[in-house]
Amino acid sequence: MKRYEALAEDIAQSMRQGVLAPGDRLPSVRQASKQRCVSPSTVFQAYYLLEARGLIRARARSGYYVLGHAAVWPPEPDAALPATGTRAGAEIGHAASVEVSDRVFDVLEASRAPGVAPLGSAFPEAGLFPLQRLGRLLAHAGQRMDPASTLDDLSPGNARLRRQIALRYLADGLTVHPDEIVVTNGALEALNLCLSAVTRPGDTVLLESPTFYAALQALERHGLHAVEVPTHPREGMDLAALAQALAQHAPAACWLMTNFQNPLGSLMPEAKKRELVALLARHGVPLIEDDVYGELYFSVRRPLPAKAYDSQGLVMHCGSFSKCLAPGYRVGWAAPGRFARAVTRLKLSTTLGTCAPAQAALAAYLEKGGYDRHLRRLRDTLAARQQAFVQAVARHFPEGTRATRPEGGYFLWLELPAGVDALMLHRHALAQGISVAPGPIFSAQDRYRHCLRLNYGHADGALDAVETLGRMAHALAGQPRRRPA
Amino acid sequence: MKRYEALAEDIAQSMRQGVLAPGDRLPSVRQASKQRCVSPSTVFQAYYLLEARGLIRARARSGYYVLGHAAVWPPEPDAALPATGTRAGAEIGHAASVEVSDRVFDVLEASRAPGVAPLGSAFPEAGLFPLQRLGRLLAHAGQRMDPASTLDDLSPGNARLRRQIALRYLADGLTVHPDEIVVTNGALEALNLCLSAVTRPGDTVLLESPTFYAALQALERHGLHAVEVPTHPREGMDLAALAQALAQHAPAACWLMTNFQNPLGSLMPEAKKRELVALLARHGVPLIEDDVYGELYFSVRRPLPAKAYDSQGLVMHCGSFSKCLAPGYRVGWAAPGRFARAVTRLKLSTTLGTCAPAQAALAAYLEKGGYDRHLRRLRDTLAARQQAFVQAVARHFPEGTRATRPEGGYFLWLELPAGVDALMLHRHALAQGISVAPGPIFSAQDRYRHCLRLNYGHADGALDAVETLGRMAHALAGQPRRRPA
Repeated sequence: MKRYEALAEDIAQSMRQGVLAPGDRLPSVRQASKQRCVSPSTVFQAYYLLEARGLIRARARSGYYVLGHAAVWPPEPDAALPATGTRAGAEIGHAASVEVSDRVFDVLEASRAPGVAPLGSAFPEAGLFPLQRLGRLLAHAGQRMDPASTLDDLSPGNARLRRQIALRYLADGLTVHPDEIVVTNGALEALNLCLSAVTRPGDTVLLESPTFYAALQALERHGLHAVEVPTHPREGMDLAALAQALAQHAPAACWLMTNFQNPLGSLMPEAKKRELVALLARHGVPLIEDDVYGELYFSVRRPLPAKAYDSQGLVMHCGSFSKCLAPGYRVGWAAPGRFARAVTRLKLSTTLGTCAPAQAALAAYLEKGGYDRHLRRLRDTLAARQQAFVQAVARHFPEGTRATRPEGGYFLWLELPAGVDALMLHRHALAQGISVAPGPIFSAQDRYRHCLRLNYGHADGALDAVETLGRMAHALAGQPRRRPA
Repeated sequence: MKRYEALAEDIAQSMRQGVLAPGDRLPSVRQASKQRCVSPSTVFQAYYLLEARGLIRARARSGYYVLGHAAVWPPEPDAALPATGTRAGAEIGHAASVEVSDRVFDVLEASRAPGVAPLGSAFPEAGLFPLQRLGRLLAHAGQRMDPASTLDDLSPGNARLRRQIALRYLADGLTVHPDEIVVTNGALEALNLCLSAVTRPGDTVLLESPTFYAALQALERHGLHAVEVPTHPREGMDLAALAQALAQHAPAACWLMTNFQNPLGSLMPEAKKRELVALLARHGVPLIEDDVYGELYFSVRRPLPAKAYDSQGLVMHCGSFSKCLAPGYRVGWAAPGRFARAVTRLKLSTTLGTCAPAQAALAAYLEKGGYDRHLRRLRDTLAARQQAFVQAVARHFPEGTRATRPEGGYFLWLELPAGVDALMLHRHALAQGISVAPGPIFSAQDRYRHCLRLNYGHADGALDAVETLGRMAHALAGQPRRRPA
């Protein structure tokens, strides 16, 4: 981390801890330069970065002020999830899992219907991506396609693209050799292949609770048992509970998201990531790390993945361009550590390869530069949408609603007042042309009946949809509706 | 079938049966028109078609003559494979299957190495495909990509492409609704999804023997038991043996190739296909029909798939553009009958979708026409290469070598004299820069140790490679090398 980034991160941390409150004026550049013993230009760069991240704003002839959202955030959800003991060993049997799957598919299909406000969608707004520029590179790739690439780009994938992915790891301080990288049909395939590589039917896998529904579906398809480990809405999986689950269940793998977890949006602190990796390594348990939102941070630098702390080759890191750059291209990857060869061979025998011209186009895009510029714009947009969205939630949802405070990504997790049935809200909302992702699809055990995951990555109609949802939630909670302030 | 096609097929059949021998002169257009009670223009069209297929040739001022290959073909392999009884219930256990998989991967990887004559490859020469024209369409698709398509084209897939695939079925006389079609990441994914949809771990699946190695790998991954059913080198799976296996094993599915089977090249006659479908329907057993080579026929019309005879929705037909049009694009499909919804949902939860611009480009290609023209050229090229290749085999391989006589595709299956170890030949050949596909990779039970699958779809160096292979086979057979005639 450069000096100005460290300074910016320091200031951002003060804001997160409430030391700096919304509306506070930051020290002048000259003052800060003295206080912090850094050059004025370092302070300037740090302020510039914080401004670009939407955390502070300059007022003409007056200095920099903290932009704040704390005032309008609903309270955070309780972290007091049931202890592991009560749910340990719960199996995703065939009957239970089918129910989960059907719900998940219903939600996914509903959020794809035309004209529906896609608050239940798993995708950000496609208009946020440089599809035209990618299209031109795809044009180039398609027209100059070397016939040999039809074979050469089969798994593990296009060599140029794997090199570019390795360079991005390097920029974040991780050494991942291109030979470790397997290009996949999106991160979803990467995750599934990693799971196949380290489990056999009947094995147990540790998951977060709540967890990304595709993990539940994958366990179901593979005939695996799930143990859901309590997960903190701000800091991710509870490591004490994890330790207990490791001792009790001798799992074959642990599958989780360290950065901007789906659905909670939690971000595991670095020290905790290090501890997570060490803990799993002591048990020799591979970690399947889904990191598809890691690039969508709102603070000053990319949060490292747990992979950064892995010295045993046990962390199987999965990434994607689908959420950050090229939705629809279906290009992701796995960096599966010591399991790279197994994953490559699994890919060869299931889908053989990933679309060769799409791989070449993404390689060209990354080589030409501009990805970071695009990402900065994307982060700023998502951060701004989060602000507006959260304010609307605070305004329109009933008393007692709690919301997570994600520092990246595009999901908000709501805990509604007890008694509000999220599945019923889901049905009512659909009738009004709004999709939501109801809590129970994020658990094999029908938890989170009063929770919702909402996608704030879409512009059109999202705030109106929040107002409508809030009205429905009021009705279901049996509360009179508050008058908007 | 049009009248001229029927006439051409009739003449082609006479050639296959030896009624018309190489060098024979066909009746003049006027004579044939009288004999067959068709118009001269119908005869002319039929002769033109046979000429385009490489079956006859016009000599100036002399008429049409039968081109022949019978004279140079080695004898056909024995159809006398062991009866089902002896292998019934054989399980692909974990240990055994890993061995199969490793061999398969070694062969695949070896055939991809640069500079190796790819006689072991599963792909035809990439230069045979209209990659430039596809590239232009991909350019168009990429640059005009509607952001909505990133969601709309997820499984079951691009609506225009599914409609074009349905229209191709219709042209062959099959009614397959676009809603039944699921676009996949190549046929390999389609086959795997179909298998997942109708089996659970521990189930038994009937396969051909020898069989496409990816079927063995798929059964292994899914924890399924394999029963290998004897398969005739010319007419495909033995239906009496199949009936016995159905009665004995209560299988969950049957997986086979009716057209130009990999590796034998066998083509199941239409009446037999009808019987196959009826037999499986009586047992309520789904058929996974891999038909990726169906478009590569050398006779006058596309052989129908078994799907054409299905009235129960039990046939899951899998096709692809990878072998016929767009290698590297990784676009195939399944038409899984009554299992369409299950397959769509499995695709959604494993790889979500297929590359959207690639789907759009193929849809545009099919809409614009020209696919059939390309296919005609491709078939002619492959048919001609088969001729030259087989002659080289007949010339250079040792006495006692048998070869199949595929009427399409690009694989030749050789039975070498007993005692020639194909795995050893494979290793020796690799050392000389030639890959081959040794027989044992086509069986879970280490059969076909003296067999080879050779790919005749590549031009450069293929005939020299055959000569080298023949020399090695002579040495391994302990035969003095015949002097080339």
